Amino acid sequence: MKRVTIGEIAERAGVSTGAVSYALNGRPGVSEETRRRILEIADRLGWRPSLAARSLSGSRAHSVGLVLARPADTLGVEPFFMRFISGLERELSGQRTGLLLQVVADHAAAVEAIRLWWAERRVDGLVLTDLYAQDARLPVVAELGVPAVLAGRPRGDGALGAVWADDAAAVDSSVDYLVALGHRRIARVAGLPALDHTQVRVAAFRAAVLRHGLGEPRVVETDYTPEEGARATRALLSRPDRPTAILYDNDVMAVAALNVAQEMGVAVPGELSVLAGDDSQLCVLVRPALTALSWDIQAYGLHTARVLLEMVDGRPARSHQERTPVLTVRGSTAAAPAG
Amino acid sequence: MKRVTIGEIAERAGVSTGAVSYALNGRPGVSEETRRRILEIADRLGWRPSLAARSLSGSRAHSVGLVLARPADTLGVEPFFMRFISGLERELSGQRTGLLLQVVADHAAAVEAIRLWWAERRVDGLVLTDLYAQDARLPVVAELGVPAVLAGRPRGDGALGAVWADDAAAVDSSVDYLVALGHRRIARVAGLPALDHTQVRVAAFRAAVLRHGLGEPRVVETDYTPEEGARATRALLSRPDRPTAILYDNDVMAVAALNVAQEMGVAVPGELSVLAGDDSQLCVLVRPALTALSWDIQAYGLHTARVLLEMVDGRPARSHQERTPVLTVRGSTAAAPAG
Repeated sequence: MKRVTIGEIAERAGVSTGAVSYALNGRPGVSEETRRRILEIADRLGWRPSLAARSLSGSRAHSVGLVLARPADTLGVEPFFMRFISGLERELSGQRTGLLLQVVADHAAAVEAIRLWWAERRVDGLVLTDLYAQDARLPVVAELGVPAVLAGRPRGDGALGAVWADDAAAVDSSVDYLVALGHRRIARVAGLPALDHTQVRVAAFRAAVLRHGLGEPRVVETDYTPEEGARATRALLSRPDRPTAILYDNDVMAVAALNVAQEMGVAVPGELSVLAGDDSQLCVLVRPALTALSWDIQAYGLHTARVLLEMVDGRPARSHQERTPVLTVRGSTAAAPAG
Repeated sequence: MKRVTIGEIAERAGVSTGAVSYALNGRPGVSEETRRRILEIADRLGWRPSLAARSLSGSRAHSVGLVLARPADTLGVEPFFMRFISGLERELSGQRTGLLLQVVADHAAAVEAIRLWWAERRVDGLVLTDLYAQDARLPVVAELGVPAVLAGRPRGDGALGAVWADDAAAVDSSVDYLVALGHRRIARVAGLPALDHTQVRVAAFRAAVLRHGLGEPRVVETDYTPEEGARATRALLSRPDRPTAILYDNDVMAVAALNVAQEMGVAVPGELSVLAGDDSQLCVLVRPALTALSWDIQAYGLHTARVLLEMVDGRPARSHQERTPVLTVRGSTAAAPAG
């Protein structure tokens, strides 16, 4: 059952491939007798219209693209991406649409992949994640007119879809909770500073700290890896006025923080409360289990795919807001130590 | 920069799409003057041969497919898949080949996806993971003649590529090490029993236990989730002759075991040695850090993609053996308790 090409049918029928194409697509240009003969041969050879052929007429690739601009090494660590992808898949599979995935080193390479995919019609649309505050992909997507959905806040003129959650409100409620527990020295270990959502969360953290009158907000920037999470924690816990609570921008850095606290003899949660910015099974696999901001990342992926497929179908781009992440309190947070 | 279709060029030139196709592909069937005019218009409109069009002649989709037959929920937990995928990507990106990914519930759905992809020429080949001892996908792949590589042991007549590691030898060396530490009651918490590599590892475990004269081998089967890993550990530690060492078939179950040991007041490694069958950053994020069987999963993905692309290029299928996983000893294993 090798795949049959138009060329083989043409050869067998003794006609041009153009004639075969006319016959198979029911267009004028061949006699009725020739058409019948071609269809018979095509049928006998087991010919089936390929997606490629239908793409030529209908212009659909039946795939959407996701370019991840990340060091490949870091992808396996964070549970986030695989859960997001499985959410995308849940929607795409139902609509017989594939997910074309490429992992590249940076946004320049992402732009190159996007141009190639679109020029070659490999995708009908794009999911854009890890949005930078200044993002080189956005003008390119606008220039090409590719249907695209941001996994992040809406931007620009509304030509792009957006699926997002109110990160600022989530950070706000975390700080409120820690303050209610009596904490006054609260620090934040933030993710990659170039990312839009990092900036949103840091701004929300600063505003909340200032609103509560807790002095100068203390923020350490990292690249989201457990190594940098550990380093940031060591630095914060080495200060004479060390924090009694730290908010981490993801789950793996918070897990790494538990080890640093143990290594430095700082009790969690007795002397230090630890709060993770992403919730995942990681958070319940460690001891103490981590208090975390929980939200449904699979639903996030699913809604992102849904908004994109609507756009591919010609419906207008829309913005979909996920439920705001809520605090799931576990063993890693407690009342601030006395004094 | 909307994508230009052959139809638009034909309309602008006042000729049939067939004539445009002849002209663009340099085939006879149009006059030289018409050809020149068509090429001029195509050029002005910014036409570029699409992948779809080239696929019709050259039959390449420039994508390879990976169908994961797993509950979407479990994908985010195990670091394995994202690392394997990033390894695949490292090879595929260099050859401008996309990875078409689909997550389905079971092998029946995987077979359906494979048939569709191949019939529609969406992929040039397939990567097959999570191989069952009896695997419904293999006869279908053989019937269709799809180039495919097994992420697992070679099988059948050598028509399929295979990239694999000697799991049996790795399990063997783990048991030898524990016996050298004085352990006599060693149990195994195995993964999904239908999987080929689970069966290979269980058989190797049984053989090693019998070879060392340790009595009836004790194996508990699970579905690889931390929940079942915890349940299996509780059952093993509740027996009067509880094991002093347990081998787990992956990393997340071993992490879950640490929590069960703590909950039951069993000291690790003082009273119980824990050994993880996969190594990942998870293993060094927990306390005690986990002794684990380490191997390079990114290289595994990279080699799998390489063997597949060779086959897509018409070269013969081959089997590539990865380095045998080696023990990385950390804090979770120690000499057997006295008595």
